[in-house]
Amino acid sequence: MATQFVVIPWDVHGNIDYGKLVKEFGLTPMGGLPTAFSENLLFRRKKVFAHRDFQKILTRIKEKKPFVMMTGLMPSGKFHIGHAILARQMIHYQKLGAKLYIAVADIEVLLARGQSLEESRKIAIEEYFLNYIALGLQPERCEIYFQSERSRDAGKANAYYRLQNTLAKHVTFNEFKAVYGEITPGKMLASLLQVADMLHPMLPEFEGPIPVVVPVGTDQDPHLRLARDIAKRAKAYTFDTLASTYHLFVPGLDREKMSSSDETSYIALTDDAKTVKRKVNKYAFSGGKDTVKEHRKKGGNPDIDVAYQYLTFFEEDDAKLKKIYDEYKSGKLLSGELKAILIEKLNTFLTEHQKRREAARKTLSKYLAT
Amino acid sequence: MATQFVVIPWDVHGNIDYGKLVKEFGLTPMGGLPTAFSENLLFRRKKVFAHRDFQKILTRIKEKKPFVMMTGLMPSGKFHIGHAILARQMIHYQKLGAKLYIAVADIEVLLARGQSLEESRKIAIEEYFLNYIALGLQPERCEIYFQSERSRDAGKANAYYRLQNTLAKHVTFNEFKAVYGEITPGKMLASLLQVADMLHPMLPEFEGPIPVVVPVGTDQDPHLRLARDIAKRAKAYTFDTLASTYHLFVPGLDREKMSSSDETSYIALTDDAKTVKRKVNKYAFSGGKDTVKEHRKKGGNPDIDVAYQYLTFFEEDDAKLKKIYDEYKSGKLLSGELKAILIEKLNTFLTEHQKRREAARKTLSKYLAT
Repeated sequence: MATQFVVIPWDVHGNIDYGKLVKEFGLTPMGGLPTAFSENLLFRRKKVFAHRDFQKILTRIKEKKPFVMMTGLMPSGKFHIGHAILARQMIHYQKLGAKLYIAVADIEVLLARGQSLEESRKIAIEEYFLNYIALGLQPERCEIYFQSERSRDAGKANAYYRLQNTLAKHVTFNEFKAVYGEITPGKMLASLLQVADMLHPMLPEFEGPIPVVVPVGTDQDPHLRLARDIAKRAKAYTFDTLASTYHLFVPGLDREKMSSSDETSYIALTDDAKTVKRKVNKYAFSGGKDTVKEHRKKGGNPDIDVAYQYLTFFEEDDAKLKKIYDEYKSGKLLSGELKAILIEKLNTFLTEHQKRREAARKTLSKYLAT
Repeated sequence: MATQFVVIPWDVHGNIDYGKLVKEFGLTPMGGLPTAFSENLLFRRKKVFAHRDFQKILTRIKEKKPFVMMTGLMPSGKFHIGHAILARQMIHYQKLGAKLYIAVADIEVLLARGQSLEESRKIAIEEYFLNYIALGLQPERCEIYFQSERSRDAGKANAYYRLQNTLAKHVTFNEFKAVYGEITPGKMLASLLQVADMLHPMLPEFEGPIPVVVPVGTDQDPHLRLARDIAKRAKAYTFDTLASTYHLFVPGLDREKMSSSDETSYIALTDDAKTVKRKVNKYAFSGGKDTVKEHRKKGGNPDIDVAYQYLTFFEEDDAKLKKIYDEYKSGKLLSGELKAILIEKLNTFLTEHQKRREAARKTLSKYLAT
């Protein structure tokens, strides 16, 4: 890979040139979406910027036929606004008629980091499930499951793990190395299980032949390509080619990757108003100038300002957002004022969200019965 | 390994020095068995010649407490007399109070040789299950299952495959290489599933803490050692150390390894009387002399004579067997006469067995309900 920036699944840094990625990975720029998509700001604002084979999903939506959106979650650390943005994308698909398959990657976290299955279960429920529900996930058309315990239906459980085992026939060590660099037996098992996660909705024991779309960050594309390659070779099955979409990352407060393991890099959905204010003021990378005088004169740079970037994910009103952009760029809006707008926006959202999150405990059991 | 003969799981040839193996592998010679064992000629005649940690199994038998005997079958080719001898050992354990766990290694055969799961299922039932039942396997205290479909109980199915996945954390590529030489993703998955086969009876979803004995040929010891090593490291579980016993191979007709893929090397349990006669007369390696005159004078060598060796597995009467040995060695019994004794013995057994095998279809369903 000739790119200057590093894009492997477990390590993302540098200034990512998405246009270059689209070209090098052979993605198709996102476009020509039906109006239903513009209701979600991720699509409206091209945060979801590219895809592979997404046309078949659009056709299914147009024909009001079912399709599957598959994704995974890593049960570690706090559920932060980066996760929330992804969750909104999932929920948007659910509204468009998708059945959601959501894998809790507890086997992967065990094999890669040694975190126990019990710990993963606790984090998945407290951090992920409750927040998903509060954000609007519906229990109907939703299979949310643990990799370590696929189903309470034996036919489904056997079929899922059988797939993981049989897929091993269609992949080489060198292919794993190309994706992961160093590879261990644990990482290999986790990778095969991830491929099974993506493909198993198409098995007769699950949905049968059905288009599946996997929304990912660009760093996850090697996984997608591996899954597509393996699926093609597994002639004992009839897998439809996986569709995928590629979205921009929500940057960390410091403009690096938002990381669950560094609490100064994110706003958690359980952070209180005081914490949000402190974190944004203290850690959010600013595109403003050093002095008020200079800022008034030369203006700020919203394109690198994290507070502004976060507003592009949380301010639904396009006109209002444009006004903020223009005023910040012209120097009329100061860095502190911009941050205050974000703090207000986030805290309004979080206050309501946190109430809904507590209420979500009551319906949790509906999601745990797969 | 400094031995002159090759002993890796998928390749056995040369003149195997069992005494040397016992020493090099650190096995314990079999001895001090209670009288119940002498009913089975494999134990009485030291065909089962060594063990690891078998004492705990003997204690369970003495205390009339349950234990597990675990074994696997490779669903390929014909069920031959080598398999029958092993099956009798299994059934002997069942009579002594063991619960049997029998894995159909259909995932392994798929990954190692590309044989479809459907084909494996057919062979397992037609060749193995029916012959096991005809040989006396009881449906009670017996879990016979396919690796590709562990259980109709979802809790059990999830637990079995979860074990396979989590064990990957406790093993390195080099350990696999030490056992298998060249290693592929498929062989690795199959190996981990085999370790799960051996250990899963001890899971709470199955028998809970219980001693498990795995009877194997010496060539399988590397698998046992790998399983024991992995079990020790998997601290999230409380596995009792696996016990194992080591038995002599039933040689092929040509004194090489009996192989399902070479029909001149074995007597199948579905062979008719004419075929048995032809195969023994044509292919059975003889310890007799070139001419009758020389044989009468110098005597034959029963220790390398395959017909005699087979009688040690099929002639229950020790006195009768000793007489045959002495008469062959003295030259009184000719090679053709010895072969005729074997042919008569095998055909008497097979005629009865083949009737029982057909009758077994009626009870097959009792064994398929795990």
